[in-house]
Amino acid sequence: MRYKMVTTLAPFPSMSASTNSSLTEPQMTAEDQVQQIQLLTSTDDDHGGVIVEMDDPMDSATFVSILRASISHWKQLGKKGVWVKLPIHLVSLVEALVKEGFWYHHAEPKYLMLVYWIPDTANTIPANATHRVGVGALVVNEKREVLVVQEKSGHFQGTGAWKFPTGVADQGEDICVAAVREVKEETGVDSEFLEVLAFRQSHMSFFEKSDLFFVCLLRPLSSDIQIQEVEIEAAQWMPFDEYATQPFMEKYELLKSINAIYLAKSDERYSGFTPVPTASNSSERKNYLYLNADDLKRHNSL
Amino acid sequence: MRYKMVTTLAPFPSMSASTNSSLTEPQMTAEDQVQQIQLLTSTDDDHGGVIVEMDDPMDSATFVSILRASISHWKQLGKKGVWVKLPIHLVSLVEALVKEGFWYHHAEPKYLMLVYWIPDTANTIPANATHRVGVGALVVNEKREVLVVQEKSGHFQGTGAWKFPTGVADQGEDICVAAVREVKEETGVDSEFLEVLAFRQSHMSFFEKSDLFFVCLLRPLSSDIQIQEVEIEAAQWMPFDEYATQPFMEKYELLKSINAIYLAKSDERYSGFTPVPTASNSSERKNYLYLNADDLKRHNSL
Repeated sequence: MRYKMVTTLAPFPSMSASTNSSLTEPQMTAEDQVQQIQLLTSTDDDHGGVIVEMDDPMDSATFVSILRASISHWKQLGKKGVWVKLPIHLVSLVEALVKEGFWYHHAEPKYLMLVYWIPDTANTIPANATHRVGVGALVVNEKREVLVVQEKSGHFQGTGAWKFPTGVADQGEDICVAAVREVKEETGVDSEFLEVLAFRQSHMSFFEKSDLFFVCLLRPLSSDIQIQEVEIEAAQWMPFDEYATQPFMEKYELLKSINAIYLAKSDERYSGFTPVPTASNSSERKNYLYLNADDLKRHNSL
Repeated sequence: MRYKMVTTLAPFPSMSASTNSSLTEPQMTAEDQVQQIQLLTSTDDDHGGVIVEMDDPMDSATFVSILRASISHWKQLGKKGVWVKLPIHLVSLVEALVKEGFWYHHAEPKYLMLVYWIPDTANTIPANATHRVGVGALVVNEKREVLVVQEKSGHFQGTGAWKFPTGVADQGEDICVAAVREVKEETGVDSEFLEVLAFRQSHMSFFEKSDLFFVCLLRPLSSDIQIQEVEIEAAQWMPFDEYATQPFMEKYELLKSINAIYLAKSDERYSGFTPVPTASNSSERKNYLYLNADDLKRHNSL
């Protein structure tokens, strides 16, 4: 169970003894003055708060009593935010937490994260994630053919429209990795990431959430097509001009803009953003900084 | 209460009558063969599913019975995903939903969204939001002075470091709007958005969530500084060279890259991504497409 025993002085040991004055009062010892109380096990976060990761089942009444003692303890320590991560199998404790003043912060299929603010000041709890990241992959070979697919479901299903592969980045996945993965998954084609040609931000795309959609240019490293049967109806290499003049494109400003960008690119007149590994402030891990590396190189070589 | 009454044929009215054969069987009428059952009020989503927005309190047992009847009804209609949006004051119904096979999809302070998949096939429930969007605003005036601040809290607190204003985009807020707002809030300075100079994607920045941080170039429209007392210790216009040579910068590759980008930019040798309003596929609303407008203009004028 994710709580620990701490030893603390009972608040008023002598008062409690005096109410039993009719009984023979035992000789008080140091041991009589301490009692065992249980506190939730927590780790500190980087912002003066604590994080509790629950795991083992507990009945609500016991939980509330330990929670209250823990909050009182953290308050004495000057802690601010209290995060409780509750796996879905402990759903019976959600109501107790909300009744104690916790509110929802975020949720994933297997857990719910609740949060509470101890100080009297306005809370500085950080905002939840607001965006999904989508990628579109324009893969063009040396013969100026685009890798295109027809999808089995979704908006273009059954319309005969040929479009470039698209998908959603996984949790923790870099944009440049997601684009290569989607192309491989949908068509079996290996490719190398070149650059982000453009990106679009759209809102209310899924309930209240927003989307950032990155259109990426990739160079193919193989040509044989092996479609993913579940999502993809058909895939092929299509001459760019045939791809770009499909009638359905007329209705899609985004796709027409991408076509204009690719034409400029193929004349070597357009620079997108290239990922450059950059040290993170706080860890050994490299993050990607996407910037106009062509322009920067040209300037630095002046 | 967010459910509706529907009239439907009871499944086996004659069987139910026959078990009472010892009783005088009443004359069956059409009215005896119908019964009132309650279903949750739902709206259809765009992917063959239904959305239920709960509001009024209900006891768990009643809720489960209405929920089961509703799912059975939706199953007959061939519905797939079932979304239940539960405001935090209905927290007492969370456990019932999970016991009926629902799981968490996402949560915000005031509600929890749960989801269920009716078909026997693998679910195609879309992923939750994975990213927060941050903005950094490089505001440089005609005297080549940068608008910089010292923050009252956070990583640089008390270090004497002068940095450009940064913040988190609100839910539904465009990057180009967020950058202008943060500058105004922190310093009182009005500004015009020019372009995204670069962006960085980083992971595990908040629990499992990722960040996309957009570094933006803005042109000031006013110069008087009025700091926001809660977050900001001080603000000033600082000559770019003085700003860029602060000793703390040595440790921050991102900041050094931004300095190099600005130097190229000020020599008119760097093009970032400019927001272009673009019609959305599905609504009247314009979304911003961010692209290298300089290159595109140059190419189109050839």
